[in-house]
Amino acid sequence: MRVRKRKGSEEYIAENAQYVVTNPDEWKGKWHERFGNNQPIHIEVGSGKGRFITEMAKANPKINYIGIDIQLSVLSYALDRVIEANVPNLQLLRVDGSDLTNYFADHEVDLMYLNFSDPWPKTRHEKRRLTYQSFLATFEQILVPNGEIHFKTDNQGLFEYSLGSFSQYGMTIKQVWLDLHTSNYEENVMTEYEEKFSNKGQRIYRVEAKFNV
Amino acid sequence: MRVRKRKGSEEYIAENAQYVVTNPDEWKGKWHERFGNNQPIHIEVGSGKGRFITEMAKANPKINYIGIDIQLSVLSYALDRVIEANVPNLQLLRVDGSDLTNYFADHEVDLMYLNFSDPWPKTRHEKRRLTYQSFLATFEQILVPNGEIHFKTDNQGLFEYSLGSFSQYGMTIKQVWLDLHTSNYEENVMTEYEEKFSNKGQRIYRVEAKFNV
Repeated sequence: MRVRKRKGSEEYIAENAQYVVTNPDEWKGKWHERFGNNQPIHIEVGSGKGRFITEMAKANPKINYIGIDIQLSVLSYALDRVIEANVPNLQLLRVDGSDLTNYFADHEVDLMYLNFSDPWPKTRHEKRRLTYQSFLATFEQILVPNGEIHFKTDNQGLFEYSLGSFSQYGMTIKQVWLDLHTSNYEENVMTEYEEKFSNKGQRIYRVEAKFNV
Repeated sequence: MRVRKRKGSEEYIAENAQYVVTNPDEWKGKWHERFGNNQPIHIEVGSGKGRFITEMAKANPKINYIGIDIQLSVLSYALDRVIEANVPNLQLLRVDGSDLTNYFADHEVDLMYLNFSDPWPKTRHEKRRLTYQSFLATFEQILVPNGEIHFKTDNQGLFEYSLGSFSQYGMTIKQVWLDLHTSNYEENVMTEYEEKFSNKGQRIYRVEAKFNV
């Protein structure tokens, strides 16, 4: 997600270290300590302006949520929401999603969300897609055995690619939605992006896939 | 596919036993004999009026094709096409697709097509869908190791279901098309049904999935 640069984002984030982890390397293997409980940990890689992860955290107080995004201005908007929500089970993490094994111990994460990830449509950019095999390997490592990825996108090409990539990695496709908003999946929480593109008549695709460790 | 009953179908089929197998049990394990060569054998389960299988046979003389359908009148229309095509690599087989192990030996089939199979949309009819686990088991048995099913449909619900069913059976999703007719898949051969529904603006879905024996 590209957003206009927001002045003072860096200071704003630094001032709210209780919501945004500023020393991410130090929390690897210690996320339960940070949350102060042993609730399951669900993460969203590419959390954007934070609507999804904040709504999820408010709706599910027995689960700990971590929204991950590398972009400073984007994360600062998410921080607005997190401060407003003011719930104890929600954290933001400003790191690159390309090697999460730096920030999470093996099996530390219970579930992962990928929402509207960058499609990188050119074949030569395949390796940058978050559902590429090398990323899946890092996700598998930090997830619990038989951990799941719940992925949604409006991008047909990325969805076609990702179904194949999950399966070829050895994951099992549990369930597929080819038009989420006309389906009977009622617990959907929309992202900012999702609402915008769905209103334009775009189909939203969704899949739940699990690792087989 | 439902078509109007055609008078004299039974006699018509009986008179053309060189194109339509009348004693199917006897050819189990002997299909290469029947074709008189050792070319690969590709089958279509639910071949309807036979356009797909006939076009495939004409385009690929080095492959043997068998179109399978249980419905008498439907098969008689397919026979019209087969007689007209008059190619040596094409046969029809009038049997129920529910247990093909009666008509094919283990590993006798190289590739299987499922085109626009009956969607059986009600949950209580799941077991009748050709991509249900018990059917996949029979398909796996008659296919070569790592054999593939190439499946297309316009039915969104059946496609969602089938992706999950293939994967949960342990098959690998090789490639997915979520809108075949706008894709760059140029070798597509349309069925009668496909042309009709595609012309009405329906998306056509396609997947290639392989067994992992």
